[in-house]
Amino acid sequence: MATLGAASQKHKVAIIGSGNWGTTIAKVVAENTTANPDLFERDVQMWVYEEQVTVDQQQQKLTQVINTKHENVKYLPNIPLPTNIIANPDLIDTVRDATILVFNLPHQFIARTCDTLKGHVVPFARGISCIKGVNVTEDKCELFSDTIGQQLGIYCGALSGANIATEVALEKWSETTVAYDPPEMDSRHQTPVGSRRGSESGEQKVGLDSGHVAKPGVKTTKLKALPTDYPPLSHNNIKKLFHRPYFHVRMVHDVAGVSLGGALKNVVALAAGWVDGLGWGDNAKAAVMRVGIMEEVKFGKTFFSNSVRTETFTEESCGVADMITSCSGGRNFRCAKMAVKEGKPIGEIEERELNGQKLQGTSTAYEVNAFLKKEGKEREFPLFTAVYNILEGNKKPEDIPDLLEDRADE
Amino acid sequence: MATLGAASQKHKVAIIGSGNWGTTIAKVVAENTTANPDLFERDVQMWVYEEQVTVDQQQQKLTQVINTKHENVKYLPNIPLPTNIIANPDLIDTVRDATILVFNLPHQFIARTCDTLKGHVVPFARGISCIKGVNVTEDKCELFSDTIGQQLGIYCGALSGANIATEVALEKWSETTVAYDPPEMDSRHQTPVGSRRGSESGEQKVGLDSGHVAKPGVKTTKLKALPTDYPPLSHNNIKKLFHRPYFHVRMVHDVAGVSLGGALKNVVALAAGWVDGLGWGDNAKAAVMRVGIMEEVKFGKTFFSNSVRTETFTEESCGVADMITSCSGGRNFRCAKMAVKEGKPIGEIEERELNGQKLQGTSTAYEVNAFLKKEGKEREFPLFTAVYNILEGNKKPEDIPDLLEDRADE
Repeated sequence: MATLGAASQKHKVAIIGSGNWGTTIAKVVAENTTANPDLFERDVQMWVYEEQVTVDQQQQKLTQVINTKHENVKYLPNIPLPTNIIANPDLIDTVRDATILVFNLPHQFIARTCDTLKGHVVPFARGISCIKGVNVTEDKCELFSDTIGQQLGIYCGALSGANIATEVALEKWSETTVAYDPPEMDSRHQTPVGSRRGSESGEQKVGLDSGHVAKPGVKTTKLKALPTDYPPLSHNNIKKLFHRPYFHVRMVHDVAGVSLGGALKNVVALAAGWVDGLGWGDNAKAAVMRVGIMEEVKFGKTFFSNSVRTETFTEESCGVADMITSCSGGRNFRCAKMAVKEGKPIGEIEERELNGQKLQGTSTAYEVNAFLKKEGKEREFPLFTAVYNILEGNKKPEDIPDLLEDRADE
Repeated sequence: MATLGAASQKHKVAIIGSGNWGTTIAKVVAENTTANPDLFERDVQMWVYEEQVTVDQQQQKLTQVINTKHENVKYLPNIPLPTNIIANPDLIDTVRDATILVFNLPHQFIARTCDTLKGHVVPFARGISCIKGVNVTEDKCELFSDTIGQQLGIYCGALSGANIATEVALEKWSETTVAYDPPEMDSRHQTPVGSRRGSESGEQKVGLDSGHVAKPGVKTTKLKALPTDYPPLSHNNIKKLFHRPYFHVRMVHDVAGVSLGGALKNVVALAAGWVDGLGWGDNAKAAVMRVGIMEEVKFGKTFFSNSVRTETFTEESCGVADMITSCSGGRNFRCAKMAVKEGKPIGEIEERELNGQKLQGTSTAYEVNAFLKKEGKEREFPLFTAVYNILEGNKKPEDIPDLLEDRADE
């Protein structure tokens, strides 16, 4: 039923990536485009890097299997997918006419994927990056959402939370955080009811959440406003794309905070694992987590724009809840704990346990330390610095309380 | 060496209570009075409810055993105690000339202990309550520190954190939070360096942290100022009484927040146990904890004075860290998890596992619910209300995501 002011267009959603997490998010999104036919076109295109898989003793293309069996047999086996997910091997065709682009692929593929997409995305499209982590080097700390936004000339928000793909795919309940805060375009869209600050309306915000030493963000003036015949991409409407009864979404504005939580928790999880390996008990572990959350806050506020909010880390799924989960059974935590208990270098445990994969916590700890060193701020982040020094063999896990001592009263 | 303005008097500390946690705190405090001879008298009196114990096949008085063997063989066995802890069976003698009273006894003994003490404490003494929990009935929600303060006519702060007595006694590292915020007396004491707001100096604060419907607090005018020949009881100096290399103290002003965290976490731990028992994974558990912390904040801000701060729950050991620990291996968590896994009522598990003791979480959940019902605010606390309804059999643990759904976007 058409009502006064109803949008004549609907948003078309494309998912860029089809791994474990990409396919899971495609399932969530496709359920929601069906549930909200006034806002979204039903079909959801999902870009699949084409490969051959063996199904029923036959070699078949993965896209064909997904589109006929409605299951990603390779990356999310045994989970029935909604039939409105359309696997597409052609990246450019996947995003054709799409006004919402959901990025969910390994971070090392971001640059070349955006290179291919450049010039082929709808100019007023909006992105959401579900890629965990940030790009930290000695010289800069950059958000993946900014990298995507800058390469494509679009605004890009972020989704991160205490989520494991398989659990979400099995519809086990969890929460997540979506950060979305595009700069003001114009004021044609009213602030929607339920949106606290009214994204895509009267915000006072220029530029993107660029990191301290990152390249300058896309200029606000480059971004194209959403045409008025589309439903506004308010927090309320973005939430409708991701929120499910088993996947509770909270919307925030702080893209940098959401992204940083997902990266820095891995460093903290190493310290939690060491302390637990020493047999110091749950309270020592909880102390490490508490200090870790506070160092995340400080990192965000020191190196990112004023938009970084303490609450993103202390009150949201992407912060405190993701920290709790990572320090409970995550691989960084587990390997660090084993290293202490067995008295072996963590690299040896990593090799034995991870089947060739690498711990994110160790590489992030080194990257963060190089960045802090260059900025002359190692001493202001005693836990991050302690983790680096323990990895380097300069300090021992037993030194952690003493290394944190000077900071304890701040 | 006497310096200009040095205090001529020292603080004398008494510990009221000598159970597992009381003796542990006595050990911490006695180590610190020795370490800070400029501030504190070395000897620490500890009140012991006298009883006979069998040591070396002889019946002996517990106080004598503590004072000769320097071990509380009954309540903290195998932990050597500092020789400057003086066990005293006489409550009134214990507090003689004491300017700092540390309360650490089961809450059911507070009233009668204070009755005995009334009129016998130094008029300008200050208290710190280490007693976890709050007194919640249908009609009021009252802090134990306020009960003590009101009965004795002194100011009383609170200590609470992610601590297990035995772990602290074994000097395994943990953190704790001390809340201390006496109302302004006069401005004779300068704001000490390191104290953020300068307790016992230019505070604008009247009355105590009385609960919403609690009896009116002790009037500020009734409280006696600390004489100027004593070292000021600044945050810095209070911290020196509790902080150890293995027991890191952070000082705050929010007595109500510190006390509430230690009580309400037990309710949340039941929900975390149920969700974990359902096999929903660490992320669901982290979601329950996150929601629980936010309901603690709301409870504090709704029913206590403006002094309640969000950060007490989200950033301090008494809040987030205590929540994490309680939802990791605490008894409320464990019993609730078993109840779901075995399909049995939690009361049956409690009886089997706790050897006649009772779960704090269930009684607190009922007390909090009665209070919320009377206040007409059940719907504003969906997790606390869900726990009550699940205990009552009106709802099932599987309903938790749905029961939290309406609140998830606030």
